[in-house]
Amino acid sequence: MAPRPRGGRLHVVLLAGGSGTRFWPASRRERPKQFLALDGSEPLLLRTWRRARRLAPAGRIWVVAPRHLADGVRALLPSLRAENLVVEPSPRDTAPAIALASAVVERREPGAVVAILPTDHVIRDVERFAAAVEVAAEAARGGRLVCLGIRPDRPATGFGYLRCAARPRSGAAVAVERFVEKPDRARARRFLRSGEYLWNGGMFVWRAARFLAELRERAPAVARPVERHLDGIGGAWTRATKLSVDYAVMEKASDVVVVPLDAGWDDVGSWAAAARLREESGGAPDPRHVLIDSPGTVVFGEGRTVAVVGVPGVVVVESEGGILVVGRERSEDVREVVKRLDAR
Amino acid sequence: MAPRPRGGRLHVVLLAGGSGTRFWPASRRERPKQFLALDGSEPLLLRTWRRARRLAPAGRIWVVAPRHLADGVRALLPSLRAENLVVEPSPRDTAPAIALASAVVERREPGAVVAILPTDHVIRDVERFAAAVEVAAEAARGGRLVCLGIRPDRPATGFGYLRCAARPRSGAAVAVERFVEKPDRARARRFLRSGEYLWNGGMFVWRAARFLAELRERAPAVARPVERHLDGIGGAWTRATKLSVDYAVMEKASDVVVVPLDAGWDDVGSWAAAARLREESGGAPDPRHVLIDSPGTVVFGEGRTVAVVGVPGVVVVESEGGILVVGRERSEDVREVVKRLDAR
Repeated sequence: MAPRPRGGRLHVVLLAGGSGTRFWPASRRERPKQFLALDGSEPLLLRTWRRARRLAPAGRIWVVAPRHLADGVRALLPSLRAENLVVEPSPRDTAPAIALASAVVERREPGAVVAILPTDHVIRDVERFAAAVEVAAEAARGGRLVCLGIRPDRPATGFGYLRCAARPRSGAAVAVERFVEKPDRARARRFLRSGEYLWNGGMFVWRAARFLAELRERAPAVARPVERHLDGIGGAWTRATKLSVDYAVMEKASDVVVVPLDAGWDDVGSWAAAARLREESGGAPDPRHVLIDSPGTVVFGEGRTVAVVGVPGVVVVESEGGILVVGRERSEDVREVVKRLDAR
Repeated sequence: MAPRPRGGRLHVVLLAGGSGTRFWPASRRERPKQFLALDGSEPLLLRTWRRARRLAPAGRIWVVAPRHLADGVRALLPSLRAENLVVEPSPRDTAPAIALASAVVERREPGAVVAILPTDHVIRDVERFAAAVEVAAEAARGGRLVCLGIRPDRPATGFGYLRCAARPRSGAAVAVERFVEKPDRARARRFLRSGEYLWNGGMFVWRAARFLAELRERAPAVARPVERHLDGIGGAWTRATKLSVDYAVMEKASDVVVVPLDAGWDDVGSWAAAARLREESGGAPDPRHVLIDSPGTVVFGEGRTVAVVGVPGVVVVESEGGILVVGRERSEDVREVVKRLDAR
């Protein structure tokens, strides 16, 4: 075994649950966003796995996923150890999922430090990402609950923010003064100007035991059912309150710090974002498709040939589930499409 | 038998051959344009059949089609008599097809008058159409080769023109001075202004015997192989020269007259034209699809849901053969798509 500096080797927990409507028609219940190759090369979950391998060997990488995605995860990640796939009996938001995974890791290796990572984001600079996680892991070994915070480059209204106690510096943890819910545009602008706010990217590093203790204190309605589920008590899981980990623990805990992440993070929140990624990747366009006089138009296809003539600046998605043609400025409105389809 | 005024009952020959690339991806070899419901209700061939029924009973309506379309024709037209389907062993342009059908009709009923009609056009006013055909049939009984000519409403460059010996009047045949190939824009404007030109719509009425005699004289390389084919001589058909009926006969014959057709004719030459038809039909949009903030956008679908958000003025075609998104002004360029796909 490798030496454990200040105790606690790093384990990585990948959160493979979650669903959404923003990637209709390509995403569906059995194939949510993290299973899509939104950058044009490989599914986001697989890219996240590779990134995790930069942090830890496969034996210390875990995936937590709801039952209906378990087969998909196994198929996509052949290197994942069977015993490292933690199955949620049903999706109950992030607090129960993270509690379950943390408890499983703690039982495997008491004193372990875990990095909790979403699997539906893109991080372009893996080296800087690994360096930030290392800083975060050090702080976690010192007993902190650590967030990774993304430095805002625009007044986004779609993310929660972390207010830092001081202007955050790369490579250093700084205390989090408070968690701020998604702001309106004006507040987001002030946050951006102040330089003291980071985006909450949903990435956390902590000692599993520290987190579980905090959860037991702050959110026993999550902690107890999860513990009972792990003790084999049938039906316990479904009694865990559906809560986000932010709400259940992070907003209330003390000793919460944040390490800035300046590594080209992108949550790929819409087809427009996916189109930017695809363009950025600079690969040759899919030779199945034909684009004529359609600059700024990006095609995501699953099988059929797509031709676009004289229609610039749109995203076209061809999928078994349907066909989407959406102006790049309008890709937030895909939700409205799904709402109308559901209403039928 | 009904009385035959001046001899020669009217038979109708529907030309169901022809293929094209303008309706990619919906059209394909086994399902060319005439099989598509471009107006949103029923295939053009079926609409043409109904129109023909206004002119003659089913026993006097014939369809000539190449072998690979025969099953499709039978499936679409259950009222077509089995013996009235004239199968071309292979497509060899309009002169051989029309020669074959005319000869078959003449054998069935010597002295018959035939109206030759394409099946991939739309004619909105069936009463006026029927009236024009009746005028044409009268002229045909008198020995003329009769065209139906469409009064131009714009300086189209995609059609051939007929120069009339005098300004054409509705309800009357007028001599054709000459056939003019597709003109450039400037000539088309002059034609339109002069009022003495009609579009050549590819619709003809004549005594079958008169046409066959003319063909024997003007284009023996078409007439003889077709006659031999009808006499059961194997391989004869493929020796018929591929020629259009205009080129083989009409441009050279004497006694050619034209009857103006003012009946809302439309050759539905592009997806944009089909979109206009669809809008004109005023039917409710297909409830499978979702259009948000996309005025002037029309969807032609075969099965999957199509959603368009914030993309006005385009035609979207969803088909097994592919997906097309084309600006309505650009639908002529679908040919370029097909060219590029064929080049692969």
